[in-house]
Amino acid sequence: MGAMSTTESMSAPAAVRRNLHLVALSGIPMVREGDDLCEIILAAVAHSGEKLVSGDVLIVAQKIVSKARGQCIDLRTITPSAKALELAETVEKDARLIELILRESTEVLRVRQDVIIVAHRLGFVMANAGIDLSNIDLSNIDQPDIDQPDIDGDEDANYALLLPEDPDAECEKIRHELKERSGIDIGVVMNDSHGRAWRNGTVGVAIGVSGVQALADMRGKPDLYGRAFRITQVGVADEIASAASLLMGQSDEGLPVVLMRGLQTGDGRAADLIRPRKMDLFR
Amino acid sequence: MGAMSTTESMSAPAAVRRNLHLVALSGIPMVREGDDLCEIILAAVAHSGEKLVSGDVLIVAQKIVSKARGQCIDLRTITPSAKALELAETVEKDARLIELILRESTEVLRVRQDVIIVAHRLGFVMANAGIDLSNIDLSNIDQPDIDQPDIDGDEDANYALLLPEDPDAECEKIRHELKERSGIDIGVVMNDSHGRAWRNGTVGVAIGVSGVQALADMRGKPDLYGRAFRITQVGVADEIASAASLLMGQSDEGLPVVLMRGLQTGDGRAADLIRPRKMDLFR
Repeated sequence: MGAMSTTESMSAPAAVRRNLHLVALSGIPMVREGDDLCEIILAAVAHSGEKLVSGDVLIVAQKIVSKARGQCIDLRTITPSAKALELAETVEKDARLIELILRESTEVLRVRQDVIIVAHRLGFVMANAGIDLSNIDLSNIDQPDIDQPDIDGDEDANYALLLPEDPDAECEKIRHELKERSGIDIGVVMNDSHGRAWRNGTVGVAIGVSGVQALADMRGKPDLYGRAFRITQVGVADEIASAASLLMGQSDEGLPVVLMRGLQTGDGRAADLIRPRKMDLFR
Repeated sequence: MGAMSTTESMSAPAAVRRNLHLVALSGIPMVREGDDLCEIILAAVAHSGEKLVSGDVLIVAQKIVSKARGQCIDLRTITPSAKALELAETVEKDARLIELILRESTEVLRVRQDVIIVAHRLGFVMANAGIDLSNIDLSNIDQPDIDQPDIDGDEDANYALLLPEDPDAECEKIRHELKERSGIDIGVVMNDSHGRAWRNGTVGVAIGVSGVQALADMRGKPDLYGRAFRITQVGVADEIASAASLLMGQSDEGLPVVLMRGLQTGDGRAADLIRPRKMDLFR
């Protein structure tokens, strides 16, 4: 679309959003530990011929945040616990990876040959604690001097990428730094791909939020005929995360940052989207 | 955005989507039983200053399809079964509504004071069989001569809106008719708002699909570093449904049709997104 038009979304009534524009930013390099994400994002905005506008929402893939923050773990440094070794008899995964999954989790919900469903320490119920073995760039990681076997004889497969320590704080940090450097206050959502209990395929969900309404409360709003409205809450940040995911691609496309224009946003955090344990019907 | 630009998405390489435009069509009247949805949509496209382009995806809210197809049921014509009356002791809902929920379902998964989680006859695991009491227009429905009490003393609350009989077929029909009348082949997704097992808030999901890839299979695709890719499937049509839901609003905004441009779509159906019972870890 070239530079995104701002006039219409700016002039539209605040209560009604009629247009959304999303652009996957180009020119983002492989992200490595210690990289300055804010600098990378601002360069990509310019590279894409865009300009940040107040009210924009930036959706950032979890992977690049995890990489920048050094959440890449060498499995050869991990000694599996008894529980991990036991699970490895059911789950066809490396016991060291299972150990990492357990360390990142507060509860194991289900175990099957190909997946462990856990409650992540951040509250998300998800597969394998969100730990990823793909798309990890090893070129700047020192090879440790540990004599343990590679998974599949593949050096890269020795590394696992964990979720960021505190995704909401990471979004807040990116938002704050972008505001410092550009003067523009935009919302930031960190997205990840989650499976669902009863539906095939993963979808983008929001695991970190700053400056965006995560959960929209519709209680008391009238429906089209003026009656009280019955659905009470909408997972807005998850819908934003899913929309961005359509552009990010999942494999070799390498488009980890999406700029969205046209939303009227409030504020919230990813925890708003986590169902309290006591309201859980399926655990 | 005014008329959506087509040049960039048309010239972009097929494998990489960089831009998405979504516009909620204006000028859509209250939909009533028997209405011609295709005519309404084409008028709304013109009213919005847009033009359909091959490859566009039209996202249509379930409610207007259900209304057009006469899926509005007068609760006063429903006699609750023994099971419905029994459930009404736990669930704070009208027993006739519970009866409808049971009739629309193949299995009851969970029951709580405010919700019944069922497997809908269409395969979706969802709350209350997707039956809606809000946003039903009664102005063209003859008042039946049945002397039963109103729910809440509210005449409108006597009506429940069921999901369409066959949402995939409805999408196919809309797609076919739009092609007949406009010559343009576009994808059609019917969306609805579903809750999730472990997350707060509803999100848009695809309950009907035609001319759009519902589930993208990533197996065998290389990741950024050329390794085999581990996430196998992405629920693309659900992400489309969520993106559109951001614009539709949920209460009195009345924007039930969204046009999306920029996707490179395949083909699929809503059933692709339903996890087979034997793969279900949570039932």
